[in-house]
Amino acid sequence: MSLKTIAEKTGVSPSTVSRVLNGTAKISDAVRARVFDVAREVGYLDDRARKGMQGALRSLAVAVPEALLAPSDTNYVSWTIFDGLRKAAAERGIALQPIVSEGDKLDPKTVPVELRKMQCDGIVVFFDENPQVLKEVARLRKPTVLLAGQDPSMHIPSVGIGNRYGARLGTDYLLGLGHRRIGLLTWKGRYTIRQREDGYREAMEQAGAGTDVFCLSGFNPALAEQEILGLIASGRFQGLSALFCLADNVALAAMRALAKSGYSVPGDLSILGFDDAVAGELTRPPLSTVHAPLLHIGPAALDELEHQYRNNRTGQPVRRIELGCSLAIRDSCKEYAA
Amino acid sequence: MSLKTIAEKTGVSPSTVSRVLNGTAKISDAVRARVFDVAREVGYLDDRARKGMQGALRSLAVAVPEALLAPSDTNYVSWTIFDGLRKAAAERGIALQPIVSEGDKLDPKTVPVELRKMQCDGIVVFFDENPQVLKEVARLRKPTVLLAGQDPSMHIPSVGIGNRYGARLGTDYLLGLGHRRIGLLTWKGRYTIRQREDGYREAMEQAGAGTDVFCLSGFNPALAEQEILGLIASGRFQGLSALFCLADNVALAAMRALAKSGYSVPGDLSILGFDDAVAGELTRPPLSTVHAPLLHIGPAALDELEHQYRNNRTGQPVRRIELGCSLAIRDSCKEYAA
Repeated sequence: MSLKTIAEKTGVSPSTVSRVLNGTAKISDAVRARVFDVAREVGYLDDRARKGMQGALRSLAVAVPEALLAPSDTNYVSWTIFDGLRKAAAERGIALQPIVSEGDKLDPKTVPVELRKMQCDGIVVFFDENPQVLKEVARLRKPTVLLAGQDPSMHIPSVGIGNRYGARLGTDYLLGLGHRRIGLLTWKGRYTIRQREDGYREAMEQAGAGTDVFCLSGFNPALAEQEILGLIASGRFQGLSALFCLADNVALAAMRALAKSGYSVPGDLSILGFDDAVAGELTRPPLSTVHAPLLHIGPAALDELEHQYRNNRTGQPVRRIELGCSLAIRDSCKEYAA
Repeated sequence: MSLKTIAEKTGVSPSTVSRVLNGTAKISDAVRARVFDVAREVGYLDDRARKGMQGALRSLAVAVPEALLAPSDTNYVSWTIFDGLRKAAAERGIALQPIVSEGDKLDPKTVPVELRKMQCDGIVVFFDENPQVLKEVARLRKPTVLLAGQDPSMHIPSVGIGNRYGARLGTDYLLGLGHRRIGLLTWKGRYTIRQREDGYREAMEQAGAGTDVFCLSGFNPALAEQEILGLIASGRFQGLSALFCLADNVALAAMRALAKSGYSVPGDLSILGFDDAVAGELTRPPLSTVHAPLLHIGPAALDELEHQYRNNRTGQPVRRIELGCSLAIRDSCKEYAA
């Protein structure tokens, strides 16, 4: 999209457009506003900001535990996030240099050593919350971002999902449908999962409703289904009218377990998931869930790295960026009828 | 800082520098890296990004409760934040158009009406957390930011302090000094204050330490001092070795009350504040506190508004940005000696 097109659309000469967009034109506010509005609408401003940083970041080191990389039904969330990062990096001409730790954790011994050796313009730490690794990474004083995780010490900037608020949104949705006894299906997991639980507790407390929290041993779908069958059999869901499951996997497991036990969804129990990473339109019934903007994390992380790279002023505070969730309402939740 | 200077410093022709910085030069990675490094160091990249947005935002509506605007000892935090916004806007040539509500809350009836009438390129909502106001503001579909507040529904983007993590940082500091019985002085306040309390609870829980929370009726220094004198007299601080005060005002009140009651700080009790908005170097003893980057909130809010303005893609998730705190260690805390 060129200055000429903007000039045609606004009826101003291309050179004036150029001067307006560089902030140097002496011109009426009305014309200035029109030029900027058109430049924005046609995507020129966005393009210019992007082009201006093209070439700044050429390569990024990406520290990632191996277990998060293979696509499987237990890690499609992390895989989706990583895929978004990969595509955004390719679009911007940025090479990703992986530093892979075996298993599901970053190795605090080898990762900092490898990072120090590596020639790179910035660092992405994927998903791990080991304080020692984060502290070592912060010492390298390069543009750095923690992806989809939280650094409670805020040594390094992070970009992730607004987990606490996403869970509030989901809980408030069920409360708005009239549900009062809403069970939470969670598991002992990462800090981000605890934040989802906090969001549920906060919303329930504010509504003056009691909490019913069921903690599974994990979110593996087959194991979760077995545990949920056990919960149903022992009458633990008695009196609940809705279940908020802190991952779609767990929601699918709950739907299967409920069907096997002769319960209907949403007739007997409303089910709400979290993530919107499975094909919820294709489940029976189609799964209502909290949509987490997983594919936006990668681009937002690159924006943050470019921001750090560009910004050479010292004493800038570390930034933590959370992206807002929304509701993907399908058919697994219905209004509460007493 | 011109392309010529960068050319001189890198030994590359100005036209090549220009092409490198526009991402169009065919050139070796080593030269490209050198040009970008120098361009960054001399502040050229930062300047260019800033200039590229100059003129985009000409005027902002600022919705603010009157009580937050006058400088006084009960609102120097909000006043400092507002002052930072004012200065940053002046630097960027952005006019601020206030919409002031009487008292200490935004008026949910008049504010949306006035905002709809007003000609502006963006909206700043200052400090209020009224869900109705936020919902109405979100409907206007303009670049919008909530300043130093949190929107639990995440309808509109926000820029503020990492309160929860700041409180963790402070609590971890006291724990690191060997304290185990750390009292928290808080008050029934805004959501951001509850997040500070959450951060304290989280850090204490992780350390396996019990919590001692004292909730004052407010943070007015004179009233807080009276209440703290009462707490001391009734022996409520017995057994504590440190007090974490969730505002500097409260910390100063605690220091005065303790002095009046014959206790020494930090000899008998360590005192840690929050905000670093008073002249902590000048108190006796100089106040150790959690430094909140209040003056960075305004510029970060303008960056966020420019980001929204530029970005014309639909379906972008709302961003919540938190700025990290640091420790301002002076003399009011000491190591715990059993």
